[in-house]
Amino acid sequence: MEFAPIQFRDNKLLLLDQTKLPGQEVFLECYTLDDVYHAIKNMVVRGAPCIGFTAIFGMALWIKDNCDFSLDQLKSAGSYIKSARPTAVNLAFEVDQVIEILERDRDRAFERTLSLGKEKIKQSEASNRKMAEFAEQDLNASLGQPTYNILTHCNTGFLACGSVGTALGVVQHLFEKEKLRHCWVDETRPYLQGARLTAYELVKLGVPHDIVVEGAASFLMKTGRVDAIFTGADRIVANGDTANKIGTSNLAIIAHYYGIPFYIVAPSSTFDLSIENGNQIDIELRPEAEILEYREHRIAPAESGAFNPSFDITEGKFITGIISEYGIIKENYKENLPRIVK
Amino acid sequence: MEFAPIQFRDNKLLLLDQTKLPGQEVFLECYTLDDVYHAIKNMVVRGAPCIGFTAIFGMALWIKDNCDFSLDQLKSAGSYIKSARPTAVNLAFEVDQVIEILERDRDRAFERTLSLGKEKIKQSEASNRKMAEFAEQDLNASLGQPTYNILTHCNTGFLACGSVGTALGVVQHLFEKEKLRHCWVDETRPYLQGARLTAYELVKLGVPHDIVVEGAASFLMKTGRVDAIFTGADRIVANGDTANKIGTSNLAIIAHYYGIPFYIVAPSSTFDLSIENGNQIDIELRPEAEILEYREHRIAPAESGAFNPSFDITEGKFITGIISEYGIIKENYKENLPRIVK
Repeated sequence: MEFAPIQFRDNKLLLLDQTKLPGQEVFLECYTLDDVYHAIKNMVVRGAPCIGFTAIFGMALWIKDNCDFSLDQLKSAGSYIKSARPTAVNLAFEVDQVIEILERDRDRAFERTLSLGKEKIKQSEASNRKMAEFAEQDLNASLGQPTYNILTHCNTGFLACGSVGTALGVVQHLFEKEKLRHCWVDETRPYLQGARLTAYELVKLGVPHDIVVEGAASFLMKTGRVDAIFTGADRIVANGDTANKIGTSNLAIIAHYYGIPFYIVAPSSTFDLSIENGNQIDIELRPEAEILEYREHRIAPAESGAFNPSFDITEGKFITGIISEYGIIKENYKENLPRIVK
Repeated sequence: MEFAPIQFRDNKLLLLDQTKLPGQEVFLECYTLDDVYHAIKNMVVRGAPCIGFTAIFGMALWIKDNCDFSLDQLKSAGSYIKSARPTAVNLAFEVDQVIEILERDRDRAFERTLSLGKEKIKQSEASNRKMAEFAEQDLNASLGQPTYNILTHCNTGFLACGSVGTALGVVQHLFEKEKLRHCWVDETRPYLQGARLTAYELVKLGVPHDIVVEGAASFLMKTGRVDAIFTGADRIVANGDTANKIGTSNLAIIAHYYGIPFYIVAPSSTFDLSIENGNQIDIELRPEAEILEYREHRIAPAESGAFNPSFDITEGKFITGIISEYGIIKENYKENLPRIVK
């Protein structure tokens, strides 16, 4: 991989520090589960898939330091790392898998956990490539244009996914096949994942793009500048309701009004069919300083507060298609999602 | 007036420099039409009504320096100042009124233009108070709640209007009548008029508020945190289509989906019934640095560009009511707007 934001070397985990991008390319060194917890919590690493991979390596580091662990201790380490980002279902999914594997057999626990993490990143690249192809097929079938203008929200490229991205993997794939006309990058306030991270990835990939404010969504769609929208997901529940970065639901409602297709691209590990609908998903509230300050500079009056929900729920009925490594599902999510999730 | 952002004293125009708020309260001194042109262009002064008032004082300064002016020269000075913000119809409206008045009679042109500017600010306060009462009456009639949670976009308070605001005048009025529960302030990217200016006004007025990112709109509405939305307007055309700060149209579409009333509050000088529909309104594109940088600090990669339309068009069909000094119009804008505009 040319751009590998997660690397395990010499008994430590190296994480490309996304809080420093795009200005500086610096790797943070993690030696313990606690280091990894703070890296996730402080968004050194982010994006649902990367959070999951990082957590596996975090568990490996914990196992290395606690080779005589009991199952209860393992579970409690798992609960700790899961609490770093409560909305991200990948995190819980990957940690639970580590626990399940080691529950059956504790032999060579450290090495096997490490291999699992590395294998997951490899699998993820292959399945993201597959998802991008499903997306292209569906665009061609439903729109049939020679090239496409794509709008995307938040960050879903190699920084979020370890290698090829999910929603941004579609953009990369269309670009490689000369089917991308332009990529519109939502800056994604308050954390500016779009302006800082997605734009960084697109620069590295050489993809033509412009950053826009989220307020421009209706204008861009009304003036014919957007052919389709692709975003990732943090959690997809039984009826297709999808938790993703705050602002995603705005886009889906506006796209629906203008008749523009809105797709979710996410690996099946993001599915949580035990939850019936989006109203039952906990929404993480993040610090108000993310809105009130920019790099220690106060934007707002000292006396003003802010309200900072980090995710919202996009209703399944506004989603044109949910694309996973098993293909695309376009309607009746309640019936169709269980058929592809084991 | 307690907070007067536009003051004419000792043959010069004093403008509260809104580019320095909320950190510093500094007045810029303007001596010539050219000074005023740049103050408008660089957003030292902003908000449709204030831009209009400022332009009148700018014309007064020009007349003072050119007391033997010809009508052609006056018109050409008017065209110059109008070009500082092409989308703001108030600017053209007020400048054309100066020209019309002086066309008939050039006697004491400087003093009369000055008086016109001062009189306009006074009239504006009275009519904004009236608009706020119309808004309260309509809220009570249609929702009938003891208190209201109001969401607002961009800046429409005393900084934008010279005294009491338009949309924010409604918030101030509800607060004074103990009918305001909470005000949600859209930060309003890229220029942050909400986080910097509206929040500053609300602090000065003592109104309870929180700043939110624009991406939070659907979340706030879905979770029952918004009872009604009020924004101002830069231009309202014959079918009710309304040009206002980028992001306004997003809000109206989302509010319509959730069944939440969305109101425009704007003086009749904002109406331009010579234009049939919103597609015919020119949209100002502003510098991409507003998106890519924050106070000279680069947010995005050096290689990335941005696309920065400053306004969008909200379709009349999504507007619950247009409130002017003549009352509220709630439907059939094409028929009803001409009846109130002389």
